[in-house]
Amino acid sequence: MRPVSIHTGAWRYPGAQRDANFNLHALIRYAQTLERGCFDAFFMADHLALLNMPLEALKRSHTVTSFEPLTLLAALSQVTERIGLVATASTSFEEPFHIARRFASLDHLSNGRAGWNVVTTANPDAARNFGLDDHLEHDRRYARAREFHEVVTGLWDSWADDAFVRDPESGLFFDPARLRRLDHQGEFFKVQGPLHIARPPQGWPVIVQAGASEAGRQLAAETAEVIFVAPGTLADGQAFYRDIRQRMALLGRPADHLKILPGVLVVVGDSEAEAKAIRARLDSLVHYESAIASLSVALGVDAKGFDPDRPLPPIPETNDSRSSRQRVLELAEREGLTVRQLAQRVGGYAGLSFVGTAQTIADEMQAWLENEGSDGFNVMFPWLPGGLDAFVDQVVPELQRRGIFRRAYSGTTLREHLGLPWRPNRHFSPAPSANP
Amino acid sequence: MRPVSIHTGAWRYPGAQRDANFNLHALIRYAQTLERGCFDAFFMADHLALLNMPLEALKRSHTVTSFEPLTLLAALSQVTERIGLVATASTSFEEPFHIARRFASLDHLSNGRAGWNVVTTANPDAARNFGLDDHLEHDRRYARAREFHEVVTGLWDSWADDAFVRDPESGLFFDPARLRRLDHQGEFFKVQGPLHIARPPQGWPVIVQAGASEAGRQLAAETAEVIFVAPGTLADGQAFYRDIRQRMALLGRPADHLKILPGVLVVVGDSEAEAKAIRARLDSLVHYESAIASLSVALGVDAKGFDPDRPLPPIPETNDSRSSRQRVLELAEREGLTVRQLAQRVGGYAGLSFVGTAQTIADEMQAWLENEGSDGFNVMFPWLPGGLDAFVDQVVPELQRRGIFRRAYSGTTLREHLGLPWRPNRHFSPAPSANP
Ligand SMILES: Cc1cc2nc3c(=O)[nH]c(=O)nc-3n(C[C@H](O)[C@H](O)[C@H](O)COP(=O)(O)O)c2cc1C
Ligand SMILES: Cc1cc2nc3c(=O)[nH]c(=O)nc-3n(C[C@H](O)[C@H](O)[C@H](O)COP(=O)(O)O)c2cc1C
Repeated sequence: MRPVSIHTGAWRYPGAQRDANFNLHALIRYAQTLERGCFDAFFMADHLALLNMPLEALKRSHTVTSFEPLTLLAALSQVTERIGLVATASTSFEEPFHIARRFASLDHLSNGRAGWNVVTTANPDAARNFGLDDHLEHDRRYARAREFHEVVTGLWDSWADDAFVRDPESGLFFDPARLRRLDHQGEFFKVQGPLHIARPPQGWPVIVQAGASEAGRQLAAETAEVIFVAPGTLADGQAFYRDIRQRMALLGRPADHLKILPGVLVVVGDSEAEAKAIRARLDSLVHYESAIASLSVALGVDAKGFDPDRPLPPIPETNDSRSSRQRVLELAEREGLTVRQLAQRVGGYAGLSFVGTAQTIADEMQAWLENEGSDGFNVMFPWLPGGLDAFVDQVVPELQRRGIFRRAYSGTTLREHLGLPWRPNRHFSPAPSANP
Repeated sequence: MRPVSIHTGAWRYPGAQRDANFNLHALIRYAQTLERGCFDAFFMADHLALLNMPLEALKRSHTVTSFEPLTLLAALSQVTERIGLVATASTSFEEPFHIARRFASLDHLSNGRAGWNVVTTANPDAARNFGLDDHLEHDRRYARAREFHEVVTGLWDSWADDAFVRDPESGLFFDPARLRRLDHQGEFFKVQGPLHIARPPQGWPVIVQAGASEAGRQLAAETAEVIFVAPGTLADGQAFYRDIRQRMALLGRPADHLKILPGVLVVVGDSEAEAKAIRARLDSLVHYESAIASLSVALGVDAKGFDPDRPLPPIPETNDSRSSRQRVLELAEREGLTVRQLAQRVGGYAGLSFVGTAQTIADEMQAWLENEGSDGFNVMFPWLPGGLDAFVDQVVPELQRRGIFRRAYSGTTLREHLGLPWRPNRHFSPAPSANP
């Protein structure tokens, strides 16, 4: 989520909550609906600046005002009971001490439901909000991310799970032998510690990663427990899945310690035709001015002069955004789209989507799950609340009927929902009572 | 709050919630009790490291594990309706963009109940959690705080209150003419902006300050709307009150735009003798090992060798902690305390306290309010939940009976509770609908 629908036309859809992205009551209702649908988690993406797009597109975007993720998820922790709460936080523009502390706090407030999506932040405008003219070079960002992860997890291990004895008789509140200072000194960070909050209920909040590059994949294979990824097709997804599993095997990590979850926009209809009509309607709500701006960015050329009702003219090579252009050119060709249709698709959402009935969507999901395409999905909804309700009321029961999705939560923590092990402390053997 | 009682013996008091400082259910109950008592706000102090004390004292402290303030207050915003939510955040170890955003988010989540206690952080251990060997020199810290405040409030003014038109027909989500980038470039910060969250419901969250030095007072007189202060006596409080009012007059600020709230530990009994017995009992629960360590710090000499049951021997001059020593020496003399009693008082809480019946406490409060000692109080409780319940059930009704405290909230925002004006945007004239 955030945008609560990634589709830029979502807020204009008939019946849509126009301010869904920034309406607390609506967000509470969505989180509760997801919980009714037994979702593992509610995911709150994050960007440390306005999205980097031309003003013509920006002024039509429903994501320009959003809650700060950790405060929103802390609020949601009090109106939900089981669903996991995952927020993005940047390793490039935050301090590891603050991040360790905030996610530990959310994990305690939610009784073990927190997850941290570790990102390096690609938007250069973010750097300009933090005193820099531009951000670190890509591989340096990942080197920093690696050390950042090391510091944060080290801080989480400051206290043994049973450090707090709170004995009123002797007056001893904690056992000093069960506390360990970090004293980290590395290339990017110098952090003394300890953290002044007890070890999180999950040991560590769940580590999520969403990097796609070589450096991003390698860091994920080493440290992540969930990967968000954006493959265009099942074949793409399988290639990514294989790549990550191979990296893990080389590292000796058990395959089931990392869940791979592609993002997918799911559009449900009572018939395939109805679902396609919803999608077409949604795309048509992407303002042409903003659509053509997005297409121009994606292609790396100014597309404003193109005839909207004809196929894309030949596009010259440039140095920018190679792979995004390649994807767009393939999409135009594959579906035979006009410039307008292509622009609205790109300006709306051009990534993976499942459009159909509960049956055909469940078929597609099952195909991914059974053919090493993914371990689950990061589901995105076309508009709110209807697109979300349709998923929970129609697709979830179909998945349950097939026996490939839970009918009720069996555990209470996000790790339990995901089938991930509790994280023992690297310094102290686990306290039997604290290790579920 | 945080420590939920500032008194270090609080957690050992018979009937006390031992983990009050870190028990969400208990904290919810306290916040709801304060709300029942019509308090303006719940205040969450903050320190970016373990408190800077010897391990002998630290291991007996109930504040070593705490929630991170913004996440805790966001959670509390969902289980309370009216009470203000004030958190400390440091200008020395945070980024203004993050702070502006988080407090704006809390203000939206709570419908206008957020306040920010702006501190420069005196504990040098905090610096060591953020890559530094020591913190900035005192006046530099305040210079940074001043610019930090300017950036944060500038970011809050990024959007006009009516910027978001969300018109599904035209597809316009916001009016670009009602958005303003900050483009701040100063000595400490370079921040482009805009903030990617709508203007807070209060315009700006309430600005609180707690500095006591020359630089701290001057910054408070210029920018604060609430001051927390820790005077030892009414005369001290009056001197501080006069000093701040004079500074404001020189600046041309209306006196009622800043509320001065001394911190006071309130111990209520059915009789004066009972209240004194509670206080004595509480002090006696400060472990001698930890009490004598605190006394040593306060005096700047090693007090371990002193005879606990005799008066304080003469103390040689040192260069350290002049004013804290002076206070302690005066206290010992004024009350004729033994070393043990003095150590337990200092190790417990040596600041201002009102100890008595609801009547005598109300008398003292009234004397401060009517004699330019304060505009209200930052009330601290001796132990939880009993000390808090006693205040709300006994002192609050007495204050209400005297007509010096509200019987019900008349407004919904923290500014309204405090009698502070809504903050207009410095760039855009107020939207009539947004300006209550
Ligand atoms: C589902 C998904 C969610 C993402 N969420 C965020 C986010 O919240 N914030 C962010 O800055 N980047 C986000 N990203 C971008 C990735 O962190 C990453 O920058 C991008 O995939 C490019 O990979 P690379 O960093 O390895 O070059 C997300 C990516 C995916 C696929
Ligand atoms: C009631 C009260 C609450 C305070 N809360 C905090 C706090 O939460 N965090 C902090 O670092 N300092 C806190 N302080 C300390 C002040 O910010 C300040 O550092 C101290 O009063 C010394 O003044 P100076 O900074 O002007 O030298 C508090 C002070 C008072 C009186």
